[in-house]
Amino acid sequence: MRLAVVPGDGIGPEVVAEGLKVLGAVAPDIESTFYDLGAARWHRSGELLPDSVLEELRQHDAILLGAVGDPGVPSGILERGLLLKLRFELDHHVNLRPARLFDGVRSPLAEPGEIDMLCVREGTEGPYVGNGGVLRRDTPHEVATEVSLNTAFGVERVVRYAFERAVARPRKHLTLIHKTNVLTHAGSLWSRTVEELSAEFPEVSVAYQHVDAAAMFFITDPGRYDVIVTDNLFGDIVTDVAAAVTGGIGLAASGNLDVSGTNPSMFEPVHGSAPDIAGQGIADPTATVLSVGLLLEHLGRPELAKKVNAAVSFDLSTRDPKATIRTTEVGDRLAALAG
Amino acid sequence: MRLAVVPGDGIGPEVVAEGLKVLGAVAPDIESTFYDLGAARWHRSGELLPDSVLEELRQHDAILLGAVGDPGVPSGILERGLLLKLRFELDHHVNLRPARLFDGVRSPLAEPGEIDMLCVREGTEGPYVGNGGVLRRDTPHEVATEVSLNTAFGVERVVRYAFERAVARPRKHLTLIHKTNVLTHAGSLWSRTVEELSAEFPEVSVAYQHVDAAAMFFITDPGRYDVIVTDNLFGDIVTDVAAAVTGGIGLAASGNLDVSGTNPSMFEPVHGSAPDIAGQGIADPTATVLSVGLLLEHLGRPELAKKVNAAVSFDLSTRDPKATIRTTEVGDRLAALAG
Ligand SMILES: CC(C)[C@H](C(=O)O)[C@@H](O)C(=O)O
Ligand SMILES: CC(C)[C@H](C(=O)O)[C@@H](O)C(=O)O
Repeated sequence: MRLAVVPGDGIGPEVVAEGLKVLGAVAPDIESTFYDLGAARWHRSGELLPDSVLEELRQHDAILLGAVGDPGVPSGILERGLLLKLRFELDHHVNLRPARLFDGVRSPLAEPGEIDMLCVREGTEGPYVGNGGVLRRDTPHEVATEVSLNTAFGVERVVRYAFERAVARPRKHLTLIHKTNVLTHAGSLWSRTVEELSAEFPEVSVAYQHVDAAAMFFITDPGRYDVIVTDNLFGDIVTDVAAAVTGGIGLAASGNLDVSGTNPSMFEPVHGSAPDIAGQGIADPTATVLSVGLLLEHLGRPELAKKVNAAVSFDLSTRDPKATIRTTEVGDRLAALAG
Repeated sequence: MRLAVVPGDGIGPEVVAEGLKVLGAVAPDIESTFYDLGAARWHRSGELLPDSVLEELRQHDAILLGAVGDPGVPSGILERGLLLKLRFELDHHVNLRPARLFDGVRSPLAEPGEIDMLCVREGTEGPYVGNGGVLRRDTPHEVATEVSLNTAFGVERVVRYAFERAVARPRKHLTLIHKTNVLTHAGSLWSRTVEELSAEFPEVSVAYQHVDAAAMFFITDPGRYDVIVTDNLFGDIVTDVAAAVTGGIGLAASGNLDVSGTNPSMFEPVHGSAPDIAGQGIADPTATVLSVGLLLEHLGRPELAKKVNAAVSFDLSTRDPKATIRTTEVGDRLAALAG
């Protein structure tokens, strides 16, 4: 198994080190190669994702990414040139984001165990395609557009994946989140696709919610959700709401999957490079470790993924919520528990 | 003062009756004319918003709307044909949504007084314009698009309004919410507009947040916000998050404003027609009463608006949170307090 590792910037390298520590404890046969990408490289060389690096990344079984960015990089550069470029080039059409309230994590909104949702966010279409433009820039007649592109091909494969995940879970419930009452064209494609595929998965019960209502119910009644499927932009927003109600971004893991297996999938914590706390050794590596769990599951090692998740579960249930996190200590504990 | 009233469907007429009760108690000179629009009319006649009715509505100083819709109307019909049609035809470019945590309202996320934000949502542009389409429908090659249109004209006027509101508030703070790192074209127009106008409002401090981060901070740190300005779709989502953290949709008021005064502005509770509880007399009319407060403010009667808001404030601080709401009793109490 060959893993490409992109530690990135800020707390990225710190949390990745702990992720690899835990990975090494459960799967010592995985061989890691490090790639220097992110804000630091861009500052140094102006490079974002050289073609040669992309080609090398393709030769791996999976990618682990920490976080990229620093305040000196203008907004959009790393996102379009690196993060989204990877998702689009490697056809990461499923952006998988579990949100579970672990024992020991205090949420004002629910009891432990009450929240266990799996968000399946589309990753290669929608408003993220970069299709749009600016006309008459810097004049009073300026017009700026953004086009959301949705294809039957793209929607079908992510909805199918969501059904497959739903049917394998105890509750077998799938919620489509969209805004079909306003975005009627795209909404219709999404709704029809869910309806059509539901015939293939009769055991799965299906619900629909508008994104505004869903963002509210994630807060007032998060326990009602099981698997969720949604478009790229709605998924970006609601998964952060889901993270907020399940202990925060420090615990939110994600996988960017090419379900076909043609390209390596990429695993990363949802949080950013957090320059404000970088270098202090106080970043919580748990989201990265949970991302390693998703990686192991994806590589066909569910028993190892279970060990990692159980270690996190146990550790969270015994953590003193008031104590300062020490990045390496959390990693040491999780590696010892999982190994 | 001439008010057009659209009670609508479900709990709409129930809450509007209480809104008018309170309005009558503070401003007996306002003359109301009722218009029958919504699901019931559509079922009966297929009509949504006849041109003649639209012309009559234009002859009023303001519109009060309850809620429209019932489960028998396909999604999108009333939204596109009535609600959004009104916003677009009457150029309601400012969608004003205050979110305040009143004394006596229990929120797991903040203490009373800690949340007092004013969301200024754009109302006539963005992904709501209905620009898009479907190609090769019902084939494996289907493509569905949605185009977000943003103009300098449209963005400038709503951002200017937000600055004007911010400068008049104690904290004088304005947060732009967008997704400039991904929606770079529209994002650039919004960012540049805020930057340019901030030179005219040097007293206002300005912040920017991506919509995903904002949706999270609305939950984990709602007290940091003062005035917010955002696009039509982001505003739809984040104002529901704001409602969820300030006592729920039963308290969320809104105004759809044509700031130029050319067309009547429209005031409505954010909640829907709630067919599940319609006819039982248990809907909370508070959001409608607060919308009446916004209406009075807009009509240049801030002292009356203050009375209405103070009545709500007092009533909420003395309500038994476990007692069932009785719609007419709440209205009676609020009318007595405000009158
Ligand atoms: C950094 C940004 C491009 C990205 C996104 O919008 O998808 C991030 O918010 C995420 O959720 O992974
Ligand atoms: C009903 C719908 C068209 C509307 C919107 O999306 O604006 C509603 O959600 C709102 O927020 O007023």
